[in-house]
This record gives sequence, C-alpha cells and structure tokens, in this order.
Amino acid sequence: MQTLWDHRFAQRTQRMSSSAIRELLKFAENPDVISFAGGMPAPDVFPIEQFKEACLRVLDNNGPASLQYGSTDGYTPLREMIARHSARYGISVNSDNILITSGSQQALDLLGKIFINRGDRILVESPTYIGALQAWNAYGAEFVPVPLDEHGMVTSQLEDRLRAGPKFIYVLPNFQNPTGATLAYDRRLKLIELADRYGVPIIEDDPYGQLRFEGENLPAIEVLDSQTRAQNECYSGNVIYLSTFSKTLAPGIRLAWVVAPPEVIRKLIQAKQGADLHTSTFNQIVAFEVAHGGFLDEHVKLIRKVYKERRDVMMDSLSEHMPEDTKWTHPKGGLFLWVTLPASLDTQDLFEDAVAEKVAFVPGTSFFAEGGGHNTMRLNFSNACPEKINEGIARLSSVVKKHLAKQH
Amino acid sequence: MQTLWDHRFAQRTQRMSSSAIRELLKFAENPDVISFAGGMPAPDVFPIEQFKEACLRVLDNNGPASLQYGSTDGYTPLREMIARHSARYGISVNSDNILITSGSQQALDLLGKIFINRGDRILVESPTYIGALQAWNAYGAEFVPVPLDEHGMVTSQLEDRLRAGPKFIYVLPNFQNPTGATLAYDRRLKLIELADRYGVPIIEDDPYGQLRFEGENLPAIEVLDSQTRAQNECYSGNVIYLSTFSKTLAPGIRLAWVVAPPEVIRKLIQAKQGADLHTSTFNQIVAFEVAHGGFLDEHVKLIRKVYKERRDVMMDSLSEHMPEDTKWTHPKGGLFLWVTLPASLDTQDLFEDAVAEKVAFVPGTSFFAEGGGHNTMRLNFSNACPEKINEGIARLSSVVKKHLAKQH
Repeated sequence: MQTLWDHRFAQRTQRMSSSAIRELLKFAENPDVISFAGGMPAPDVFPIEQFKEACLRVLDNNGPASLQYGSTDGYTPLREMIARHSARYGISVNSDNILITSGSQQALDLLGKIFINRGDRILVESPTYIGALQAWNAYGAEFVPVPLDEHGMVTSQLEDRLRAGPKFIYVLPNFQNPTGATLAYDRRLKLIELADRYGVPIIEDDPYGQLRFEGENLPAIEVLDSQTRAQNECYSGNVIYLSTFSKTLAPGIRLAWVVAPPEVIRKLIQAKQGADLHTSTFNQIVAFEVAHGGFLDEHVKLIRKVYKERRDVMMDSLSEHMPEDTKWTHPKGGLFLWVTLPASLDTQDLFEDAVAEKVAFVPGTSFFAEGGGHNTMRLNFSNACPEKINEGIARLSSVVKKHLAKQH
Repeated sequence: MQTLWDHRFAQRTQRMSSSAIRELLKFAENPDVISFAGGMPAPDVFPIEQFKEACLRVLDNNGPASLQYGSTDGYTPLREMIARHSARYGISVNSDNILITSGSQQALDLLGKIFINRGDRILVESPTYIGALQAWNAYGAEFVPVPLDEHGMVTSQLEDRLRAGPKFIYVLPNFQNPTGATLAYDRRLKLIELADRYGVPIIEDDPYGQLRFEGENLPAIEVLDSQTRAQNECYSGNVIYLSTFSKTLAPGIRLAWVVAPPEVIRKLIQAKQGADLHTSTFNQIVAFEVAHGGFLDEHVKLIRKVYKERRDVMMDSLSEHMPEDTKWTHPKGGLFLWVTLPASLDTQDLFEDAVAEKVAFVPGTSFFAEGGGHNTMRLNFSNACPEKINEGIARLSSVVKKHLAKQH
C-alpha cells in the first residue's frame, strides 16, 4: 500500500533496496537452520576475556574521555597503531593517512559521498561485494562489471572498460567476497599499471587479507602502487585501501579504517562529520587496548587455524555429497567459497526448499551488478562449527540432488 | 595546492566544509583554555561504575552475541525499552516505529538520504543546529530560515514559507541548540496545524528534552500531532522524532534513535544498511543494561541538578561581568545559552582575542543558514565546572569590554 510518505522519498531511494543477504539473515536467526548465508565470524573465537579486561582498564584509567565526544578522524593511538601495522607490510604512512570508520560499510558510503556524481561509472568485479553496490546505488552510480575468475579480476579485459572513463575501480584482492578468489600477483601489477595510465583510482577493499590459511601473502595493491612511484615522505598514490577489525577482533564493535592520501582523508572527514560526527570513542579505545602489544597477531593465528579447519571440512563435505558437475572454489583464506551447480539449476529456485530443509546460503545472482550467476551460490564457512558444516552440506546436497532428479 | 584528487571529488563535496564547531574543538583541547565552545556533557557525571558493571555482565552472559553482527534496525530489547519510554510521554508506538542510529547525527544524515532531492527546500529555525545544515548540504538542500525568538520558531511567519513547498520542517523544540529557546505550547499547536494543512512533515529533534531544570514539561510535537489524529493502533502521523542517549548516558557510545511511521523506518533501514550495516551491537546491549530498570531516570535527575547549577553560575557571572547592553537567553534546560552583544561588536573578530585570553565560544553566525547574528555567540554551560565557568566568563567579559573600549 502506497502512503503519503512514499511520495515524499527522494529519487535516489528508488535505487535502494534491502540487501538480499540481510533479509536472509532473518532465516538464519532460527536456531534450527544451519546458515551458510551470512558473513559472520566464528563467535567461539571472539576474545571475550580480553574485551572484559580492556573495558575495565579503559573505564578505570580513561573513563570520562572514553565516554565523551571524540574527534572525527579517530582515536590517535589507534590510528598510530594502524600506521605502524601498515609499515610492517611495506607501506610508509602516518596517522594523517588514516581515518577510523564505523565498519568498512561506512568507508564505502563515505567514498560514495565524496566521489560519485549521479551517472558516474564504477568498475566492479563480477560478482562483487553486495554492500558496495548498495552503498553506491544511493549516489546514482552505474556499475561496469569486469569478469572475475579463480585468479581474481580478469585484468586482460580491463582496458576497454577503462576507456569508458570510470570514476574508480573497486577490487577485493584477497579471498574475495563472494567467490574466495585471490588476485594473482601479475594481475595486481597489470591493474596498477592500467589504472595509472588511465588516471583512474583504485579502491582496494581488504577485510580478509590477514586470514590466509595457505600459500604466501601477496603484497597489497597499495604497496605495489607505492613502489612504482618516486619515494615520497608520505603516501600519495593512486590507491585507497580499506580494512577492518570486524574479522580479526569482532564485528559488533563496528571498527574499520581507510588508508588514503591526506587530501582524500580530509574530504572523508568532512563527509563523516555530517554522517555520524565520529566513531564510538569507547569502542576505539577498547579495541586499541585489546589489539596493541601483540595480542592481535597471536589471535589472528588462532582464527586462521579455526577457519582453515572449517574450510577443509566444507570442501571435503562438498566432495562427498554434491552431485557430479558441481564445482567450487578453493579459497586460500577468508570466509567464503563459491559453488557452481550444473547450469540447468537455479539457486534462487533452490533457496526455498533449502530453508525448508533447514540450511541457508546466498543465491549467487545477488552479487552481480548486471545479472548472471543463476546457478551459483555463496557459502560461508567461518560461522558454523565443523559438525554443523558437515550436516548442512549434506542437507544442501540432498536438495540439489532432488532438483536435479526432478529434471530427468 | 590543488591535487589530482581535488578534481575527482563529487559535485556535492563543494558544499561540504568542516564544521566551525569541530574546528574550534581543537582549541578546546588545550587544557589551559576554558571552552564554552563544544556541546559536551559534563564528564564528571558519566555513570562509569554502571558502565563497568554492564560491560562485565554483557560479556559474561551475552559475550558472543554482543560482539557479533546485529540487525540493522537495532537491538530489540533496546527498541522495546524506548517504545515503553515513549508511551510514558503519551505516545503509542511499538518497536517497528523505532530505528537505532549511530548518534542523532546519523539520523539527520539518513533522513537527508531518504528525503532530499537536490534543490529541495528545508525550513529551519534561524539560528539552528549546525550539524543538520552540514548533513543536508551534502544532499543539495536549500535552507529557508524561519525566525526564532525566546519562545522558539516564530510560527506566525511560517505560512508564507510553507507556500514555497518545502520538503520538511526541522525544529528543535526544547532548549534549542544554539539558543536555549523552548517552543511555546501554542506555537507547537500552530506548527502542527500548519504542517498538516500544507502536507509538510516535521522533523522534531529533541536531544535535550529530558534535561529541564525549571517549569513544566511541554508535550512533544509528536505527541500533540498524534492527539489531533484518529486513534490509530500504531503511530503514523506527520512527525519524525529524534532523540539520543548522548546527553543522558554518554556521547562516546554513539547511540540515538528515530521514532517514525513504519514506512519511514523501513526506508531508513535500507539507507542505514548501505551506510554502516548497523550500530555497534556491544554498545546497544551495554546501554540497555545500564539504562533499563530505572537507573536512567535517577541519573537524569542528577544531570539536571548539575547542569542547573552551572547554568545559574554562568548567568550570575554574565550579570556580574558583562557590559551593559549585553543580553542573554534564560534557557530552562539543556546545555546552551545565547549571548547577544552590542550591535557594534562582531563575535568572529572577538574570537581570536578570546582564545589568546584562554576562553573559547562559538560565534553565532555559524548557526545561520543564510548569514546573520554577527554580534551573537553560543555558550555551553554543561562541560566546565562552576569555578571554571566563573573564571571563563570573567575572561570573556574583559575581552568584550576591551573591544568596546577600542570603539570609543
């Protein structure tokens, strides 16, 4: 039913819709459903004791300041810690290059706000993170998909699309959401070279980079880009880098950061002032207390171990239960893998039956800016314990087999 | 120096600027400066012990859920508590009418996102809250000022401006930021009547309503509006109501809420998904633990007592030290009062000398969408202790007198 309010909403709201994933999370709330649909970390490895100690320490030693308004750019010791951490990965930045955001989702929103004019083209991997599409739809972006394979964005198909004059390129180089693919080293170089040649900035979204289970870490696009430039005191390259504490500490504290040239950070700060003044002072100080002094490094090792086991269980279970002609990616880290069913199947059709059988996933088509992927799905392996993963994949496979059988 | 990045920024960023207040807070960081410039609550009454107990209880009993992703609309028990609280003030809403936001600033941003098309007119009090101007500038709003006096928005001058077809009316009815003025009862009725007649919604921003030191509480515009309508099961009037925990619990946890018809809440949820997914789960659960069970009511009584004393000290000190022909408002609650100096003075000129004398304020002109108020200033009385208030007003008055003497 249309009401008076519906006629008042701005033009841009016609492009807003509730994310399929967020809607699906409702099903996941039923404790009987084994959900591979969300992107939730394993709650059993949240560092609850460390949070308790940090909360007490912060409130005892720094109580009034931790509960007071703070500056828009973020808590200085936390920004300095992130700068030091970045330096370990080979990039020289200082705290003026860093803005704390209320989750990476806010970084995407603020980047949309400062860069996107209605009709601007954005190059995105196909498929890509649905939250980026959602954030930038609100600013009237047009998405230009770039194909992606098991080595990430297919950079050989990039140049044509760069000629269309996009505003920026959005890429998730490590254990991509939704596919789990990692951008190969030579493609990183190619991406940087082409982006530089056409004067198009890169937004590198890296929530999972630290969660590698196997193989060697690849240098961040940001690092490779800075190496191609003259030695600057301070980073001012062509890349805006995003990362987060959501996958290494906890998502419920909503803490992430942007690394960018100072003039971009200044503009983001202006945008953030109008958007939420600043990110929770308390959460920033508590996260700093938990993370600094080496705990985070140790904790990430534990997360890697737990997630690797779960990925292995899921892949083994897929091998055991799924029908022939089903394929899936082999992610070397992160939270997700990507399943491609026989082309005759449609995962949106499957979804309802799967939920009836008490297992959930995200139909792959949600992640394509311009349609596609009807027979694909994203599975999260970080959230459920190994027993549930086994059981869930068995349930899911039986639904798939039933749908296949119906076709014969 | 213009860089390549400056040419990439979206058109809307030309209307973005750093808020004068936020810039001024930098001066306030110098501990020698007595700052009346910010809008900061008194840190000495933050309920630190209650936060400590709540953090421990939440992490012990609800640890994994409190650190996990949450739903976009907010933590259900917190929304239910707010609904019950609203009912005490005479308005029947349920949790579907309530969205938790990351501070009221985010509510303003999301309202801009869902309502404002470029060029839309917004009626604002003159002067008004600078953060609203900042949030809506980013969506291309045009502001139509409505004069304000000691009884709030001058509703006799509203009708002409309503004929210009504004998108909504923005009003701070209680102890307004920046003037401390409260909208009179008959003006509330007039505002509702006119808004209804012209079909223009009202955004009622009420961060300070609970902090009344003297006189009787006036019913919220939202309440009066609902009384003029047929009995509905669920509130679906013409008013969107904003409030916050920033002034009653603590601003550092960034927690506020919107009360609105369900169709507006649904659209705000879509906008919030793209903006930051959801507000910190941890902070929501901790705030619920602190606030429910009657603590908040008791605590607000303490805040009122402390702020009343500080207001009185400031008003007495102004009487004692300020030159003749200086006027100030008598706010019956809230955090701010508004000083009008002799017309020959300009508070922007005064500012630098004041900071040199180690006292800070906000020049009033910052709060006018279309200029004005050159001889006015906003003073915050909640943050500094009584001794500092006395000392700060003495310093400020001597700067004012010096500037007056120069003119003779």
